[in-house]
Amino acid sequence: MLNFADRLTAKIKETQNPTVMGLDPMLDYIPEAIWQMANSRFSDPGQAAGEALFLFNQQLIDAVVDLIPAVKPQFAYYEQYGEHGYIALQRTITYARSKGLLVIADAKRNDIGSTAEAYVRAILGQSTLGQDAAGQKISRQFIGADCVTLNGYLGIDGIQPFLDQCSANGQGVYILVRTSNPSAGDLQDLLLQDGRPVYEAMAEKVASWGKDLVGTSGYSSVGAVVGATWPKQAEQLRRLMPQSLILVPGYGAQGATADDAIASFGPDGQGAIVNASRSLMLAYKKHKLPVAQFAEATRLEALAMRKDLQEALARSGRPIA
Amino acid sequence: MLNFADRLTAKIKETQNPTVMGLDPMLDYIPEAIWQMANSRFSDPGQAAGEALFLFNQQLIDAVVDLIPAVKPQFAYYEQYGEHGYIALQRTITYARSKGLLVIADAKRNDIGSTAEAYVRAILGQSTLGQDAAGQKISRQFIGADCVTLNGYLGIDGIQPFLDQCSANGQGVYILVRTSNPSAGDLQDLLLQDGRPVYEAMAEKVASWGKDLVGTSGYSSVGAVVGATWPKQAEQLRRLMPQSLILVPGYGAQGATADDAIASFGPDGQGAIVNASRSLMLAYKKHKLPVAQFAEATRLEALAMRKDLQEALARSGRPIA
Repeated sequence: MLNFADRLTAKIKETQNPTVMGLDPMLDYIPEAIWQMANSRFSDPGQAAGEALFLFNQQLIDAVVDLIPAVKPQFAYYEQYGEHGYIALQRTITYARSKGLLVIADAKRNDIGSTAEAYVRAILGQSTLGQDAAGQKISRQFIGADCVTLNGYLGIDGIQPFLDQCSANGQGVYILVRTSNPSAGDLQDLLLQDGRPVYEAMAEKVASWGKDLVGTSGYSSVGAVVGATWPKQAEQLRRLMPQSLILVPGYGAQGATADDAIASFGPDGQGAIVNASRSLMLAYKKHKLPVAQFAEATRLEALAMRKDLQEALARSGRPIA
Repeated sequence: MLNFADRLTAKIKETQNPTVMGLDPMLDYIPEAIWQMANSRFSDPGQAAGEALFLFNQQLIDAVVDLIPAVKPQFAYYEQYGEHGYIALQRTITYARSKGLLVIADAKRNDIGSTAEAYVRAILGQSTLGQDAAGQKISRQFIGADCVTLNGYLGIDGIQPFLDQCSANGQGVYILVRTSNPSAGDLQDLLLQDGRPVYEAMAEKVASWGKDLVGTSGYSSVGAVVGATWPKQAEQLRRLMPQSLILVPGYGAQGATADDAIASFGPDGQGAIVNASRSLMLAYKKHKLPVAQFAEATRLEALAMRKDLQEALARSGRPIA
């Protein structure tokens, strides 16, 4: 399997669009027609809810499948609906991958080494469920994402099992460096004795952990999360991590502009992907369309966002190749 | 509902045992008799595996229910078995709570505010699944743990929704401060300009975030995770967080002793709970019993661990009240 950074870079060039669509669904985003279909198929409210989540995501994916390289389901939004949400998450990921989209599992997992191995099996790999009558292992892949987000507070022990998996199977990780939220600085901005803030120390670790996973694109499958809401810090972080893929949350609903978001791109106009969740999923509100036309609105907004990012990159002298 | 710190403190006094049993099951821990029962009930390998996980946990819980105050399922070990693991996790938590045990959900979640709210619903609260024919909300609780572990790298935004839930419903959180793993220091030991390591800065945040959740026990429901593998740091951290509950991993399979583990206890011999996962779950190996007697071995080991902790606390002049 090709290196994840190379697969993502190729897909961004193909679509000319460094956008990842966040799939963070709430049941109250879902229009009546989908609910009716889900309720006609399942009488149990949990199963109907899971079906509605999947059908909603499926229409969002279909609306933009030729326009975007990747989707990013945020696990919390599925876990809140229990096993029904979990099954909807699996079905969404399988569907997105079957359509050729890359899938970034936004799970922000973190733990000690032995537990990290279990998370690798859960999200990127597969698990052994037992033996069949002939004594052969029965293995099953549950999530099977292309990439997962991680939190590096525990150091390399909890990261290494993911790096081993990525190296063997062409998958990737994004490690939190500078998050997009207002209180990101509570811990991340504390100044170290050498004058660097904590987030820069994390960035140097990410760069170092990724050295063995650099692809022909020049980027590593060990990436960083850097919020678009902090463009000054993002410019500095891009210099500190010249080969790291960067996942950029914060555009749109969280307030950052395209000019803010492109601070994380490399000099070649590559190496970063900008997330939009609510601004794409709830685009019908902005475009003043009825909720029944949510998928059409999402496509309009994905086109507008692509143009917005393309123009900002061109203005900065780094058009997408 | 009583404050979580008060509920835990009372339960530790009742059992005279500051032990939490980690429930981190792997399918290959499970003895043949349980597999036979699970396979007789389900022909699907995934469903049989989920049933085996639950039956195994149930026997572990039954073996120690009168001896220990709490259990701590580690989510990765369930997530690795997909929806079957997830259902086994839910059943395990429901069963443990029905037997009067407190449940600490070891999920180490972390995210921005809106996403943290979804994790609160997933792990501590409940979610709305829709409306019934009469227009009434249909809500369901999926995990419903008493407490959850969190990672504070994103600052207060991602913690506050949990604090609000804990305040309203008598639940608790433990935030990672100094983890038990060998590479804990990669980021946590970096020295700040004021001379403190990063983990002490996190400890001060935990102490400050917990001020409004202090119970009549004198401890706060906003706790910290401090590995038993770092007893010197633990002594200092207890001074910095005099009112914080502390969850102490690292005893047993990870190598720390009872004398190491009790560094996190308060001057009253309270305020901390020591986790053991593999050393309790796989006690039949140490006690040279056949795997079929795993539950009996776990009880023997739980008694030995209680004695070990009681004696270490007495030696340090802080016997359990």
